Parts: sequence; C-alpha cells; structure tokens
Amino acid sequence: MGAHAKPSPPALVDHHCHGLLRTEPGPDAFAALLSESDAPAPSGTTFLDSQLGYAVRRWCPPLLGLDPHCAPAEYLERRRELGPDETARRLLRSTGITDYLVDTGLDDDLTGPEELARAAGGAAWHEVVRLERLAERIADAAGDRAEFLAGLSHAVGEAAGTAVAFKSVAAYRYGLDFEPNPPGQAEVRAAADRWLACRTPGGRLTDPVLLRHLLWSAAETGLPLQLHTGFGDPDLTLHRCDPALLTDFARAVRPTGSALVLLHCYPYHRSAAYLAHAFPHVYADVGLALSYSGARAEAVLAEALELAPFGKLMFSTDAAGLAELYVVGAELFRRGLARLLDGWVGDGAWSAGDAARVAELIGAGNARRVYGLGPG
Amino acid sequence: MGAHAKPSPPALVDHHCHGLLRTEPGPDAFAALLSESDAPAPSGTTFLDSQLGYAVRRWCPPLLGLDPHCAPAEYLERRRELGPDETARRLLRSTGITDYLVDTGLDDDLTGPEELARAAGGAAWHEVVRLERLAERIADAAGDRAEFLAGLSHAVGEAAGTAVAFKSVAAYRYGLDFEPNPPGQAEVRAAADRWLACRTPGGRLTDPVLLRHLLWSAAETGLPLQLHTGFGDPDLTLHRCDPALLTDFARAVRPTGSALVLLHCYPYHRSAAYLAHAFPHVYADVGLALSYSGARAEAVLAEALELAPFGKLMFSTDAAGLAELYVVGAELFRRGLARLLDGWVGDGAWSAGDAARVAELIGAGNARRVYGLGPG
Amino acid sequence: MGAHAKPSPPALVDHHCHGLLRTEPGPDAFAALLSESDAPAPSGTTFLDSQLGYAVRRWCPPLLGLDPHCAPAEYLERRRELGPDETARRLLRSTGITDYLVDTGLDDDLTGPEELARAAGGAAWHEVVRLERLAERIADAAGDRAEFLAGLSHAVGEAAGTAVAFKSVAAYRYGLDFEPNPPGQAEVRAAADRWLACRTPGGRLTDPVLLRHLLWSAAETGLPLQLHTGFGDPDLTLHRCDPALLTDFARAVRPTGSALVLLHCYPYHRSAAYLAHAFPHVYADVGLALSYSGARAEAVLAEALELAPFGKLMFSTDAAGLAELYVVGAELFRRGLARLLDGWVGDGAWSAGDAARVAELIGAGNARRVYGLGPG
Repeated sequence: MGAHAKPSPPALVDHHCHGLLRTEPGPDAFAALLSESDAPAPSGTTFLDSQLGYAVRRWCPPLLGLDPHCAPAEYLERRRELGPDETARRLLRSTGITDYLVDTGLDDDLTGPEELARAAGGAAWHEVVRLERLAERIADAAGDRAEFLAGLSHAVGEAAGTAVAFKSVAAYRYGLDFEPNPPGQAEVRAAADRWLACRTPGGRLTDPVLLRHLLWSAAETGLPLQLHTGFGDPDLTLHRCDPALLTDFARAVRPTGSALVLLHCYPYHRSAAYLAHAFPHVYADVGLALSYSGARAEAVLAEALELAPFGKLMFSTDAAGLAELYVVGAELFRRGLARLLDGWVGDGAWSAGDAARVAELIGAGNARRVYGLGPG
Repeated sequence: MGAHAKPSPPALVDHHCHGLLRTEPGPDAFAALLSESDAPAPSGTTFLDSQLGYAVRRWCPPLLGLDPHCAPAEYLERRRELGPDETARRLLRSTGITDYLVDTGLDDDLTGPEELARAAGGAAWHEVVRLERLAERIADAAGDRAEFLAGLSHAVGEAAGTAVAFKSVAAYRYGLDFEPNPPGQAEVRAAADRWLACRTPGGRLTDPVLLRHLLWSAAETGLPLQLHTGFGDPDLTLHRCDPALLTDFARAVRPTGSALVLLHCYPYHRSAAYLAHAFPHVYADVGLALSYSGARAEAVLAEALELAPFGKLMFSTDAAGLAELYVVGAELFRRGLARLLDGWVGDGAWSAGDAARVAELIGAGNARRVYGLGPG
Repeated sequence: MGAHAKPSPPALVDHHCHGLLRTEPGPDAFAALLSESDAPAPSGTTFLDSQLGYAVRRWCPPLLGLDPHCAPAEYLERRRELGPDETARRLLRSTGITDYLVDTGLDDDLTGPEELARAAGGAAWHEVVRLERLAERIADAAGDRAEFLAGLSHAVGEAAGTAVAFKSVAAYRYGLDFEPNPPGQAEVRAAADRWLACRTPGGRLTDPVLLRHLLWSAAETGLPLQLHTGFGDPDLTLHRCDPALLTDFARAVRPTGSALVLLHCYPYHRSAAYLAHAFPHVYADVGLALSYSGARAEAVLAEALELAPFGKLMFSTDAAGLAELYVVGAELFRRGLARLLDGWVGDGAWSAGDAARVAELIGAGNARRVYGLGPG
C-alpha cells in the first residue's frame, strides 16, 4: 500500500470509491457519467442540468484554470488540452483524500487502486473486493460446480488476507429483502448447479441463494462488509433497497464480528442511521448521495447526523470514472459538514472541541478504526 | 384552446388542476376544501389551523382588499360580497398561470376547463382525461361487456386526439402495488364481467385488472400519463402509494414512448425524483404537497430538487373548487423556488444564468415540451 | 392526581413519559440510557458522541451549577455529589412541565407517577396503562386460560376508570403490519392457550392475535390509545413500524370513538402527520425523535408541521430513567418550535397570534382536550 500524502485541507479517508477512466471521455460520455440513468437524457434535457452537474461546474473549472460555472464545452475543451493524466493529477490532488479504499469490481475498464493513488500524488490505497464480481470470475474459470464452490471459498479466504473489506451489490442483483440466514450446503449446491447450467461467460450473478452464500462467506472472515443500499442505476428497485430490510440479516450476522457498512442509503439514510444507532456492528455513509445532491448535500448530511452515533458515520465519494467525482464528493462533504458544525457551535448546541473531534472521526478516524488502516 | 395571457410574474404552466366550484361555499364547506379528510374536524379543532389554512390567509385577503391574516369570518364575508365570479377573477388573475391542464374527471360539479381559463382572464386550457371516470361513464351507458370494452377502447382513442394527457387515480382505487404487465384479453373480459355484474350506475372502478387495462390502453396511445402518487384523501393507503412501487410498471411501459408523470408524491417525493433521474420517460411534480405544506413549501421543493434532473420536474397546483388554491399553489411554488435558487446563487453553488433557466423549465418549459403545448 | 405547578416558561403537558431511576447510575449505565442500543458502544466509540449526548451536555450542566459542555466525568461527579433526589429536583423543575402522563409499564425499577410528580415540585400526574404489561401481569397470576381472559377483561375495564389512556408496544412485540380487525373469541382463546402453555412467569406477550385483542379491548373503552411507532430499541424492525401500516386498523377502529395517538414516528413522522390530517381520530407526536436528534430537533419538528393539523400534534419527552431526558425533551421542543414559529411570523407567512395559539395547542392544549385533563 502506498505512502501517505498530507495535503493542507483536513485529511479524508475515502472508504468507498472506484478507479478512473483510462481515456478522455467525449461530451456524451462525460454527461452520462454524471447520471445513474441507463439511457441518454430525453430530447430537450441534459444530465448536466442537475445538482451533480452544477457541482462539477462549480468546483472543477478553477482547478483547471477556468472560471467556476464556465460553459461545459469550454471545460471539456480544457480537459482535452490537458489530457486525462494531467486532469486527474490536478483534480485528485485538490481533494485532501489520503487513503482510497477501492472497489475493484466494476465491469468498466478503470484504473486499479495503485494507479489511482499514484495519480493522486502518492496517496495510500487499499482494496475492497466485490463479492459478485469475484464469484463471476471464478465461475468463468471453473469446470464444474465443485470447482466453482471450492474456488470461491478459496478466493474469499485469499481476499480476506489482502483486502480491507468486502462489498456486495445484492441490492442491484436481487434487492435487500433476501432471507437473512445462511443457506444450507445442499441449497447452495443446487443454486450453483442452476446458475452454472444456464450461464454464459461474464453472466451476472442474480440468484438470491448464491448472493446470500457470498454475504455469509464474507461475514465469516470477520472483515467489514460494505453493502450498497438506497438509490443507484435503474437495475435496482428503490424500495427493495431500503437498508431497514437488512435488519434481520444484521441480527443474524452479528455473532460473526463482521462490521456491516451501509453505503449511500438515500433516501433511506435516516433508517440507515437508525441501524447504526441500534446495532453495535452497523456503520453507514451517505457518500454517493452527497455528490448527487450538490447544493443540498449539507441538508442530506444533516439528516444522517440525527440518529447516527458520531463514531459510526464515514466519508466516501463512490467516485467512478471521472476525477471530477472525487473533487465534488470531497468538497461537498467537507463544506457541508463544516457548515453544519459551525452552525451548531455558533448556536451553543455543540462545543467547538466536540465539533472538531467529530469532523475528524467522520472524515477519517472512523474508517481508520473500522478497516484497521493504522494512523493517518 | 384559449388565448395566452402574459402577466408580469414569470409565466407558469399548471400541468395538473381541476375546475372551480360554481357556488359560494359556506364556512364549513370552505374549510373542508382545505383538507383531505373525509369528516369534519374533531371538536376543538378546525381545518383552518393548518399550513394550508395559514397560506390561504396570508396570500388571498390582500387580493380581495383585506389585510393578510384577517379573521376567516371577515374573509368569507368579503368573498360573499364579491360573489364567486368576481372572487375567482381577482384571485386567478394574480397567479401568473398562462396554461391550465385540467383533469376533468372529479365527481364534484366544477367548472370545465374553458370556463376556468376564461375566469383567469383568457388563459390557455388543455384537457387531461381521467381514465377511471372515462371507464365509469362508458360503463353507465354500455349494455354489455363487449359494448363496454369496445366503447372504452374507442373513447381512449378519441380522447388521445383532443386531450394532452391521461390521468390515473389507481392509487386511490387499489394502490400502486399492482401487477406491472398488461393484463391478457381474457383476463380483462372476465374482470369486466365481474365488475359490470355487480355494479350500479356511478359505481367506482376498483378492480386491479381493469385499472391496469386502463393504464396500458392510455400508455399505448403515446400520450403522457399522469399518476396520482403519495398522499391524498383517506380512500388511499399511504405506503401503498409510494411511487417507487411503480418501478416495474415504468420498466414495462417504457417501450410505448409514453411519459409517466408522477403527481404530488409526498412524502415519497425523493423516491419520485429518483425515478425521474433513473428513467428517461419519468417526470415528477410536487404540486399538491407545496400547497399543503405552506410555510414549509420551500423545504419540500428543495428535497425534490436533490435527485430530479431539472428537465424532469414540473409545476402544478392540483387546485380544485376554490380559486384560493391556485393562488397559494402558484405563490408557494414561485417564492419557494426563488428563495432556493437565490440562496444557491448567492452561495456560488449555482450560476445566475443556470438558476434563471431552471426556474423557467420547472415553471413552464418542461410542461410545454412534454405535453407538446407549443411556445408560451 | 397532584396539584398544578406554574413555572415561568410556557406550560407543557408531557403526554408520554416514564419514571425515574431510583439510584445513581454509573458512567456506563448513564451512557446506555442515552441510546436505544442493546449492547455497549463498540470499542473506540461512546454513546455520548451523539446528538442526544451533546444536548444533555448543553442543557443540564448549568442546572447543576456547571458550564455547558463540561466534561462528562465532571458532570457525573457533580451528579453523584448532589445525589439522585436533588439532581432530579433541580432538573425537573426547570422543564415547565405541569402534567406528566406516565406509562407505568416499563420493566425497569423506576419511580411511579406520583413520585415523579413530587420530584418535579408538585406537578399533576396521570397514568397511562401499558397493555402488554397488564396482560403479562394477569397471566403471571392466572390459573388457566379462562381466568386469564376474564382477568384481562376486568383489568382493562378497571384501568379505563383510573387511567387517562392506554399504550401499546405492539410495534416491538410483532410490528404494525398486523391484521386490522378484532380477532374472534375462538381465535383469542386458542392464542391464549398457546401462549399460556409455553410461557414462564414474566414471559413477554408477542402473539399477534393477543396483541390485537388488547388493542381492540382498549379501543372499545373509548379511552385514547397511544401506539409506539417508528424507531426504538433493536427489538423492533424499523420498516415494520411505519405508522402508515396502521391505516386499516385506524379505519376499523374509527367507530369506537377512541383516539389513536401515534408516538415518536421517526423517520416516518411525515406519514404520521398525514394520518393525523386524513383521519379525525388520529393524533401524533414526535417526542422521542426530538430528544434523539438534538441540534436537529427543529428540523424534525418542522417536517411534522407540514401536514399535521395544529390541533392534532402533541408534546412528549418519552423520558425514562434519567431526569436529564425531561430537560432535553422540553428544551428542544420549546426552542425548536419557537424558532420555527418566529421564522414564519418574521417572514409574514403566519400571524403572531396564530403562532402563539399553535404553540399553546401543541405544548399543552391538545393533550388537555384529548385526554380530558381539564384546564391547566
């Protein structure tokens, strides 16, 4: 894992993000990376007309020598002039992120954790292993069911030795309303038979028995387990991704000692904060939700800060593809949190010392403790 | 369709409203029109003690020559002096609404779109056809099932030629947790047989198969389809009206090219905004929710403006019966939006140009484009 | 019922609270009483790092002669010096609560209503009978099923003569997604047989048939019925405690004339406010949610004040064990409401007279009327 950089803004640990595009995106690809939609914006509209679009236009142009809110075409032209490497370098080094925890399981061709950390000026990096992707890779290589299950078990064990956490996208693949308990061995074998029989290479894992098998295999390693909850692309059905649906799973998995980290959670972030309040092993972030809500990030963060104990909330960008997404994730989080805390301190509701301590916990300290990263 | 008026406040297209009462309401009837309840307010309380009641008392008395917040009795006395026509004239002409899209399917005896637009000083009007009402009218006249189904098919086709949209109140009649796919012909015939057999004239359509048949018949015309979601009168069960429950229907209906417009959506407006974000053919408003939340309208609107792309949100009043409801719907929307945008511009988060453009899109432009109204 | 005290801050009726600890809590017990969790805070965290923890540290030290936000150890040391009686006396007398409606059914060894009211300087007190506890006590003493059911019926009737309300924790014991209609007698007998057969003394009532039997027995007395909804300790599953799930029960129970009072409701307080809006016999509070959200109490209260008619919302602390919880419940409610109302009056949206009247209604008047407490 890389060396630690110490930029002047308060240090942040991005406990959930992805790699960067390797090539310069055209205007349509750039806009598409600012939306969770799976189709072009309908005629007469553009994905840039959104809170995220305006946040990118607020924070990124000055880092490339342009005025805030300059025209998108001017920004993209400047981006092309600089090229993807120099753009990434300039943008990432502004963020104050010292540690990147990178989910390496996206299908797209993105840079790996090491390249990302290097582009960021020598930040530290740590891998988060996406369970479904792991299973799909093993299935691509396995000759039969026995080989698949043994290979999976071996790969999970091996990942537990190098990664700092597992990640599940069961929310996209099925929903969070799955059976809470670990499936029996016979059930897993039958599900694996069904899946492997009809699967073509690269085929996605959507079987709920196998998804649960993955979750339980990961939890039993004792590593933290990140779970996508709340909104995302249209593969998911929103109300079936309410983190409250994980309550029975949280109860069942509690004896393993694995921490459950609920990601994004919007618009159910208050429910996620409740789970983090009620269960000692549950944690939450509102990463992606802050970037997408732009000028409203402070308001969303405030809601998460109602019930969540301050030792249970974390920062993430969930950035993928565009270096701009690390910038807006970090800026919106840092400014939103600072404004909330300053308001509460100014009001006398909090002490200044508590506010400073909580800012550090949420920005970095909680992630360092939960993922065992060592001091920053 | 009528001529366009151009009042000095920014023009608004009210993409979902109803007609006016034809007579002067007494105090109890007036208060009842400010609530979704189906019963008088319990002893010791009044529907006027509500955000909507106070918003009416804030904005309407000055338009009739009285002080804001004057006593309700004084206001009603003044209203009686002026009579319903002059009251409507004074109130409606203050709103800046240039186009009324009128759902003509309420049971109450209200003015039609043309009369409404005339009272508003020659605004434009367009009809929105309520599907359940259409089916009930056809059923009242039909001799048998074949006549009913043929009549319905013909009426939907005819309405598609004159109306700008269809509207469904399946939320009230069943809930939004219906099967997403179009029912088969045999299923529709059997449901029609069941319904017609036990129906008396005027009887409401609540059969989920026939409700789905209506939705699909409408979608297949390609016209926009407005769907009531979220809160309303106590005929509905709130959690069964979460617009997220429409996700599979949205997926299924997408190939028809029909736009789905989610109405009101409160308290699930963030979920509606997500659907508008994720699916190219989904749109949303928070019409009724703004009027009912009064001094909190800005806060509710702000939440809808987190995930919704700015080309996907629309203005409506959902006003029915009282001209006061157009006034508060328009005032609360316009002022709430202006305060939000001014705040974001003042903060540097948005550019002034973007703010002006978004205000026009949400207030009028999006509706003009989606309903094909032509320039304002 | 005790005499009425009239402190200088506006009088409050706490329509749902519990008794005080009889002994001085140690540091861990003190912290545990500031959380709904059932386990110690995980290593590296403390329950004091929470909105509720900071609210206690803001409001309570000055009442014991210390600085706001002094170190927890200093505060606890001072508390020990004063002893539990003097601490309670000082804290409770600051609250302006003139009437305590005390749910006497918690398992813990807490003071009774009379002792609580005495500690508060001679406030009035009224009992709220917890249905499940009542049934468990009867079951502990009953020889057989017939004796249990007859005893329960008798006890409910007797409680209706002395208590001001019943309270149900069906949310914790089963969830709010129970069948809405009253169970038949044979069904109740069979359920009682099953429960009594496997029960050991003190065993909790979780059978949904018996829980419904309790709810209906209480409603049929015509007394108000308080229902826990929304968040609480990890015995409950959050999404199964959405008050909207009570809609069919509210419809069914409406003819009994019993008022349904939805307690806490967070994060579904907007849905609870809707039910209070739509149904004449439904009321709501956001008691516990205000204490737990601390610096965010104003924001949570604001959301409840969107749809709830102002004659339908009430104040409570839900305090249990620590006198600090009455203090923060009262302070956060009073200040949050005052800031909201001042803002709306300053803005011209509300009249000052309406604001003063609404503050009195929510703080005391609505509870006086609904529970028949007589003038303050």
